[in-house]
Amino acid sequence: MAKVDHSRMANAIRALAMDAVEKAKSGHPGLPMGAADVATVLFTDFLKFDAADPHWPDRDRFILSAGHGSMLLYALLYLTGNSELTLDQIKAFRQLDSRTPGHPENCITDSVETTTGPLGQGVASSVGTALAERLLAAEFGEIVDHYTYVLCSDGDLMEGVSHEALALAGHLRLSKLIFLYDDNGISIDGPLTLTDNVDQVARFQAHGWNAMRIDGHDHTAIAAAIKAAQASDRPTMIACKTTIGFGAPTRAGTSKAHGEPLGAEELAGAKKALGWDYGPFEIPDDVLSAWRAVGSKGAKAHAAWQTKLDAMDKDLRAEFQRRVIDRKRPAALDGAIRKLKDRLVDEPQTIATRKASELALEAIVEVVPEMLLGSADLTPSNNTRTKHAKDVTPEDFSGRYIHYGIREMGMAAAMNGIAMHGGFAPAGGTFLCFADYARPSMRIAALSHVPVVYIMTHDSIGLGEDGPTHQPVEHLASLRAMPNMRVFRPADPVETAECWQLALENTGGPTVLALSRQNLTPVRTSKSDDNRCAKGGYELIAAKGNASVSIFATGSEVEIAVAAHKLLADKGIAVRVVSVPSLDLLLQQDDATRKGIIGDAPVKVAVEAAVRFGWDAVIGPDGGFIGMSGFGASAPAKDLYKHFGITAEAVAEAASSRLGGK
Amino acid sequence: MAKVDHSRMANAIRALAMDAVEKAKSGHPGLPMGAADVATVLFTDFLKFDAADPHWPDRDRFILSAGHGSMLLYALLYLTGNSELTLDQIKAFRQLDSRTPGHPENCITDSVETTTGPLGQGVASSVGTALAERLLAAEFGEIVDHYTYVLCSDGDLMEGVSHEALALAGHLRLSKLIFLYDDNGISIDGPLTLTDNVDQVARFQAHGWNAMRIDGHDHTAIAAAIKAAQASDRPTMIACKTTIGFGAPTRAGTSKAHGEPLGAEELAGAKKALGWDYGPFEIPDDVLSAWRAVGSKGAKAHAAWQTKLDAMDKDLRAEFQRRVIDRKRPAALDGAIRKLKDRLVDEPQTIATRKASELALEAIVEVVPEMLLGSADLTPSNNTRTKHAKDVTPEDFSGRYIHYGIREMGMAAAMNGIAMHGGFAPAGGTFLCFADYARPSMRIAALSHVPVVYIMTHDSIGLGEDGPTHQPVEHLASLRAMPNMRVFRPADPVETAECWQLALENTGGPTVLALSRQNLTPVRTSKSDDNRCAKGGYELIAAKGNASVSIFATGSEVEIAVAAHKLLADKGIAVRVVSVPSLDLLLQQDDATRKGIIGDAPVKVAVEAAVRFGWDAVIGPDGGFIGMSGFGASAPAKDLYKHFGITAEAVAEAASSRLGGK
Repeated sequence: MAKVDHSRMANAIRALAMDAVEKAKSGHPGLPMGAADVATVLFTDFLKFDAADPHWPDRDRFILSAGHGSMLLYALLYLTGNSELTLDQIKAFRQLDSRTPGHPENCITDSVETTTGPLGQGVASSVGTALAERLLAAEFGEIVDHYTYVLCSDGDLMEGVSHEALALAGHLRLSKLIFLYDDNGISIDGPLTLTDNVDQVARFQAHGWNAMRIDGHDHTAIAAAIKAAQASDRPTMIACKTTIGFGAPTRAGTSKAHGEPLGAEELAGAKKALGWDYGPFEIPDDVLSAWRAVGSKGAKAHAAWQTKLDAMDKDLRAEFQRRVIDRKRPAALDGAIRKLKDRLVDEPQTIATRKASELALEAIVEVVPEMLLGSADLTPSNNTRTKHAKDVTPEDFSGRYIHYGIREMGMAAAMNGIAMHGGFAPAGGTFLCFADYARPSMRIAALSHVPVVYIMTHDSIGLGEDGPTHQPVEHLASLRAMPNMRVFRPADPVETAECWQLALENTGGPTVLALSRQNLTPVRTSKSDDNRCAKGGYELIAAKGNASVSIFATGSEVEIAVAAHKLLADKGIAVRVVSVPSLDLLLQQDDATRKGIIGDAPVKVAVEAAVRFGWDAVIGPDGGFIGMSGFGASAPAKDLYKHFGITAEAVAEAASSRLGGK
Repeated sequence: MAKVDHSRMANAIRALAMDAVEKAKSGHPGLPMGAADVATVLFTDFLKFDAADPHWPDRDRFILSAGHGSMLLYALLYLTGNSELTLDQIKAFRQLDSRTPGHPENCITDSVETTTGPLGQGVASSVGTALAERLLAAEFGEIVDHYTYVLCSDGDLMEGVSHEALALAGHLRLSKLIFLYDDNGISIDGPLTLTDNVDQVARFQAHGWNAMRIDGHDHTAIAAAIKAAQASDRPTMIACKTTIGFGAPTRAGTSKAHGEPLGAEELAGAKKALGWDYGPFEIPDDVLSAWRAVGSKGAKAHAAWQTKLDAMDKDLRAEFQRRVIDRKRPAALDGAIRKLKDRLVDEPQTIATRKASELALEAIVEVVPEMLLGSADLTPSNNTRTKHAKDVTPEDFSGRYIHYGIREMGMAAAMNGIAMHGGFAPAGGTFLCFADYARPSMRIAALSHVPVVYIMTHDSIGLGEDGPTHQPVEHLASLRAMPNMRVFRPADPVETAECWQLALENTGGPTVLALSRQNLTPVRTSKSDDNRCAKGGYELIAAKGNASVSIFATGSEVEIAVAAHKLLADKGIAVRVVSVPSLDLLLQQDDATRKGIIGDAPVKVAVEAAVRFGWDAVIGPDGGFIGMSGFGASAPAKDLYKHFGITAEAVAEAASSRLGGK
């Protein structure tokens, strides 16, 4: 086979990107055209992969953080012979039901490593990818040994989360993490100099990275830089100076090349300038063969790796199979939770649910070795560190506890990368109020079905004196509103254990555990083998006879509901209490189940130290709600509950007044 | 009066902080004790202020970004003689109804510049403060000439938004912005080296800042550094190496000094070590006098400034009075909006509401000279730039358009600083989906009653091909759930003009305008002097006779509701359509008003291309909802509406099926 030069191979990417965007009448040709040379050198000379098996666990990861340049990735997958990304899929770019959505989504396209598009997310999750590799290598040895390459853009590096990612990767000295920065100097509003003068090389160096500048169209320079990156003991950033829309006669180097079709004339001009004399979607045989050879050459390394895996110690191999390949949770989890629940009933404790979460974690880490805990610098408050936890440090990756720093979004994004890489069950802590900081990465987890757990403590005004800047009131609602985000707010140690089990079993998406700062009276005082939280809500106290009143409550307010029950029952009112550890899960039950749990008592009252928003789905517009209608205040928690009227008396009164009116 | 040395003055801060935290049994003594020397030098030798008038418009701003160190600020206010911060208030630290909440809140404490606590927010809003000063100075001349000083912590500089702030300030060369970084090397989890190795001086320099390191307990060095900062043509960061909990015998320099009372013994030991032989809350006369002298010495400069102001050109002075001192919107706004509405009815246009927003802005900028528009690098998509807009550049601050860069949170935070400074009405654009990135700063705006406007376009699956990473589905709900956040989603050009008026008149908090990417059919086709959006919802089409069906819709789905109305009315069903440009505003109306607008038709159906969450408050748990139940997809908008079943037919069917069942 004749050797096809890199430029011609790169032009195949450019042509496919131009043609696909043109056909779709929308999309981003500029990045694929500009970064085609960098990607070509990376894929042909460096990237370890086997197009026949995009899930080979030890493949190098290629993360297109600049997700708007999705056609670069799709073109590479098609050209290298990935069976999912056919030419028909390229032609269906950005159309309904295609595998080629506008931005890469790992749940739509099986061969895509991670969902990107919202800028900064790929950059930040890649830190988790590279970290997972180091952690797995420390545990499983040479069977794990790959690089994580990230193609990122100006926008990725302008987003704040990039700072958190750089600092964390630099601190941990993730030397197998390599950023290829498509330094094209153009953003949507125009030249980057309209808004930015950061010296990116100096910036990365200040964060402990190896960094350099090269001509991103010089194949020799690109190859030399990647070689140098591989040899560095630091993560590396290679700023590749490129021309956006490379080849386009009038738009190259301008923001007009970024995010719209070139138009027939400009497209023809570009093909001419590139010496690419082929029709739409046409790839000449020599170029396609050369690319297909790139896609298949990794098969040999893949086979050698398989041989090594087969020769591994049997138990270790089984563990690798379960965690990394099958991605299953250990069977022992269920038994461990049941045992813990029995113990919690036998020895009831009046503790905060954050403390109950710690108790649950102590039991869980015994049977779930992939638990990878951490906190965004709130370890003593989030109760995320178990007794025998060992820190992950730049010198030692055998630990299982990560000090993520004051970087909530960086933590959430890194957890995405860890979970998507496989091998670990990441769970990280912060205050519930700071879910806002992490939200863009949490959304990626929800959209991409990434199983991570957020341990979010100090979940209401019960936080007390730190005041309204730290007191969530709308956060439960805002998280419940997000599709595929599971939100639990357990009421006591037994519910906390049950919710932890459900969180770990929720392998199709992320889970929030909202936990109290303050101590709570146990409400689950008898043993139960069932996980009563599994449907989102359950009857905690039945009414005597047909219920006139149903009281719904979550978390720290369940004890208030129980007290209100007593006040009403003492008056002879038939009242029941429904604990709702997960409102979103309850609302997702089928009609009969949901209505069965909610019941048909004529009076419905909910109590939650948060806003009403969303609760009308349970209690109806005329139902009673005891909670918050605005922000909190700074004072001791008990004073605040009284001040804001979140009391058993208020709940009872809301019920009584409605009964009176009937 | 004998001269009191700086150290003794600084010890007064330390003692008050220790005593107040001890009495409150909660709080953060570490920062006030560590940063007391830096603050003392700044306040005594540099800060231009007049304790008798904390609102003097040309005061230097002092922003405590490390809000957990609130006792530093409260101590300084008390010591310098601010009348709001009495000793009783210090003694009521962190108690209900005090002016001394756990973290500084400008709405609770009038003398506090800005609400801080969530880390990074003060740092980021200060960029807006410093920018507002430059913009005002360009317009009003020497009457505006002050510095913005920021005391920040490790945590502030770890948060991603700090990157956005640094880059923006460095780009704009805001040379009167000075950061005093309390470089104590300690965070909650322990030594900073557990998580961070960033060379902050090198980092700031890479962002175009002047930066230096000093001993933060050396008064001479502190003074010299601030002098150098004032002389620089760049923003300056002074890394002040300090000991957290300075003086505490066993806790100084450790994370134990950070966030809890010292305890009686440690406190006594600290006072002894500091040579501070006074009881709780006791400030010796010499020290208090020295501090009071600091507080009153600015009176002279203040008087001189007033003389200058009085001598100003009368019109210019009136404008300064209105915008900066009285903070009132111009009276001409109402007339301009009415005129625009009439024109939009006379010349109806089928355009996107983002385009309608541009038309509104063209009319608004004619009468509201304080409009300060911008976008987070989506100018051509957000339609935020009016025809005659001029860019703000590092060389010229007379413009009124800001290219914020791809920095959504940085933009939102800067707008907070701009609005709190006074003089401008900031409004910035991004995609609604990226509200998530800006959310922590949006929450500060809501909590602090800051009047800013977010122009959030591409507000649903109507965005089309960019796909679910860019399509908001839960964002309307998540924003509506936030207290004091006004959310408008207008349906056509007339509603857009009305919502813009309401947004600018909402001077008690922030406003989101959610705007369509796609073109919409006008629904407001007759003239009305009233602002019909003012109650959040109104009857757009009345039923013939008693309504059997009410259809509720917002924004781009109102035209679908109108079409569904026709389908049902053609069958002889009495149906009305209620446009709900602001669900949150509607739900805040008094019972009678809200119920009057919602009406009592037995069948209620809502249509919105978003999740149902929150709508049950209008339609009830049994109401019909046509919208999204999960994330969107990548395809042309029309295909998506059909795919997800958001059609007039579906709305009509949801109504008919419910009627049938009655």
